[in-house]
Amino acid sequence: MIVELISVGTEILLGNIVNTNAAYLAEQCASLGLSCYYQTVVGDNVDRLTETLQTALERSDIVILGGGLGPTQDDLTKEVTARVLGLNLVKDAHTEERIREYLEARGFTVTENNWKQALAPEGAIIVDNENGTAPGLIIEKGDKRVILLPGPPNELRPMFEKDIYPYLDKLQPGVIYSKTVKVCGVGESIAETMIQDLIEKQTNPTIATYAKTGEVHLRVTAKAEDEKEARKLVKPMVKELKGRFGNSIYTTDTEVTLEKAIVDLLEANHLTVATAESCTGGLLSARIINVPGASEVFKAGYVSYSNKTKRKLFGVKRSSLEKHGAVSSTVAKEMAKGAAMLSKADVTVSVTGIAGPDGGSAEKPVGLVYIGCQVRGEVVIKEYHFKGNRNKIREASVSAALSLMRECILQYCSNVMFSN
Amino acid sequence: MIVELISVGTEILLGNIVNTNAAYLAEQCASLGLSCYYQTVVGDNVDRLTETLQTALERSDIVILGGGLGPTQDDLTKEVTARVLGLNLVKDAHTEERIREYLEARGFTVTENNWKQALAPEGAIIVDNENGTAPGLIIEKGDKRVILLPGPPNELRPMFEKDIYPYLDKLQPGVIYSKTVKVCGVGESIAETMIQDLIEKQTNPTIATYAKTGEVHLRVTAKAEDEKEARKLVKPMVKELKGRFGNSIYTTDTEVTLEKAIVDLLEANHLTVATAESCTGGLLSARIINVPGASEVFKAGYVSYSNKTKRKLFGVKRSSLEKHGAVSSTVAKEMAKGAAMLSKADVTVSVTGIAGPDGGSAEKPVGLVYIGCQVRGEVVIKEYHFKGNRNKIREASVSAALSLMRECILQYCSNVMFSN
Repeated sequence: MIVELISVGTEILLGNIVNTNAAYLAEQCASLGLSCYYQTVVGDNVDRLTETLQTALERSDIVILGGGLGPTQDDLTKEVTARVLGLNLVKDAHTEERIREYLEARGFTVTENNWKQALAPEGAIIVDNENGTAPGLIIEKGDKRVILLPGPPNELRPMFEKDIYPYLDKLQPGVIYSKTVKVCGVGESIAETMIQDLIEKQTNPTIATYAKTGEVHLRVTAKAEDEKEARKLVKPMVKELKGRFGNSIYTTDTEVTLEKAIVDLLEANHLTVATAESCTGGLLSARIINVPGASEVFKAGYVSYSNKTKRKLFGVKRSSLEKHGAVSSTVAKEMAKGAAMLSKADVTVSVTGIAGPDGGSAEKPVGLVYIGCQVRGEVVIKEYHFKGNRNKIREASVSAALSLMRECILQYCSNVMFSN
Repeated sequence: MIVELISVGTEILLGNIVNTNAAYLAEQCASLGLSCYYQTVVGDNVDRLTETLQTALERSDIVILGGGLGPTQDDLTKEVTARVLGLNLVKDAHTEERIREYLEARGFTVTENNWKQALAPEGAIIVDNENGTAPGLIIEKGDKRVILLPGPPNELRPMFEKDIYPYLDKLQPGVIYSKTVKVCGVGESIAETMIQDLIEKQTNPTIATYAKTGEVHLRVTAKAEDEKEARKLVKPMVKELKGRFGNSIYTTDTEVTLEKAIVDLLEANHLTVATAESCTGGLLSARIINVPGASEVFKAGYVSYSNKTKRKLFGVKRSSLEKHGAVSSTVAKEMAKGAAMLSKADVTVSVTGIAGPDGGSAEKPVGLVYIGCQVRGEVVIKEYHFKGNRNKIREASVSAALSLMRECILQYCSNVMFSN
């Protein structure tokens, strides 16, 4: 089935906000096995929205509209949709009650224009909104489906996950099942080369690769009559990928991020961690602490941007700074060791590099980064050359540091196992 | 004039990447005074791209296409555009030379398919690409303009700024001039209320508000026969806004971020800074260090996520933690003071809060954050209640911390001036 996405909102046309809803919905639809050929953004304008919706209905089976369901006169997605489909708007008592409850619970007075949000095209399926006053709407007309969702991502996403995804899933014969294999420390092009043969001969399951900073996610998707059958198709392909990528796979769980996998690994092995950052300035510690419950393993984070602080905080030698410079494997090593002394953490990670735009030289160009990882006295230093602007280099450094941490912890654990 | 944006790329339709190019181009076009009514995303498909481009040409004066200019067979934006406009593709010797130089300088061998990027529709204006091999193209046909840009943002943006913006600017009679007034520490709705009367009666100049996390940007745009005239129209409005927002305005320079303004303020007053973070986990120090040259003022950053580290690192009292909890104004104060002792920095900022999703209670809900700012012995603590998910709360905390820092530094400087 073919789906089309329409985002309604002048703020997107003016570039005030980035259209993250479209990316979210597109990824969800792809995982449902729906084909999406067009995404359109249009403003809150009757004629242009009418034309856009009509065109979409001609060429697609399902049209998902996001935005324009607010209480003001400007919001007219519902009104236009009803008119295009030839449906009347009728008051929905259940929604009226929900709006009243929602607003009163938050101490707001219900104003007359709020009742606009309780109107729905006749026959529409009402989808309750747990995080706002505008309900979602599913309208079935002939073999076409129009789905209306509120614009704010914190309303649209939970609603989609809870009600729209299952609805769309049921529309199609059979079941879609997918599993994501998450790989770190392997470049996108290398990963693609490693599975070129699998992609070329793929039918069911299919493999899609999603490149993230420092990571590649491989989504294996199968379609079958029931979930059991679909899982059966996915399983051998995931096994094949595990054989090819080995330890570089950090999870096959959609919900697990690289930092979460590392926090789990530290916890399972009763290890604590501390960070010593220069060019990343705290982004590495922030990634680790973004894992709820990281306080169990995270001892401390230190940010030293100047040479003086590197000396005072980590005890980096003046001679090392003079001889090798702040961006060097020697200083990365001394930072990792210093952080271990300071924090008494089992694992310490240091990052020092040139994020640009200034500070580069022929010998040490922008993008040169040294990352050190110390695990109970053993230190590993790696040299990296990243491309892109300051932000890209910083983000790539953080991802590389996480990958290196994971590698070193795994190495340490296997050594311990081996020596026992 | 009416502009329309077409983004070409299957990776956007699949939701693999967020369409940040569209937001960027939309904001640029808005600042040029161009009206944008539609944005479309379409895949690398001849028929669908042809149809989309034809529709856009019917209803808009200028069509900007981004993406699909790569060297592979899949990339067909240029080929489709040439066909729709009835133009032949001819080899451009200048571009051929540039591609050779670009690749050879990076040690790459030029492969046969690279020469595809040296083809251009006859009569097209070639726009050199400083950051890649695909040149931009401007095609004028009758009263229509089609502009083709490479998809990678680090190629598209510099090219747009350097060559496309001036080109579009010249197309229109008169001159557009705008100035952005950046406000921090004032909520979006309050800011809008404060200028409601100005917005209602606006004609020339106009005011557009852009809400960022913890900030509001007010863009004043005027249109006139020449720049001098346009500046004259903008000036009194900027003055009016300065009168209304006073010290909350941190800059009227487009390039200056809040963190840059703070680093400049610290530098100008010979002050140094250190951070003490809990729930933000290093995001605050990372924001400050994102300013090139921040090493002059940034002494150190500390991240303590657990109570134990708060005690050991900052000397937060066990009794404070027991009596008030880690998320309290008392602990925020002790963290700011401890960081000052540790780093000897003039200004220290502490953040402690509940970013969720767990850890909240009726008394201390998710989103409760205390921020402390110490300037040479004086400490100010503020309590905040942020909404949204873990990331939103962390980002809002960082912005609030920067605003508070700025406020306290300004206060300190005015006291010093006053006492002198």
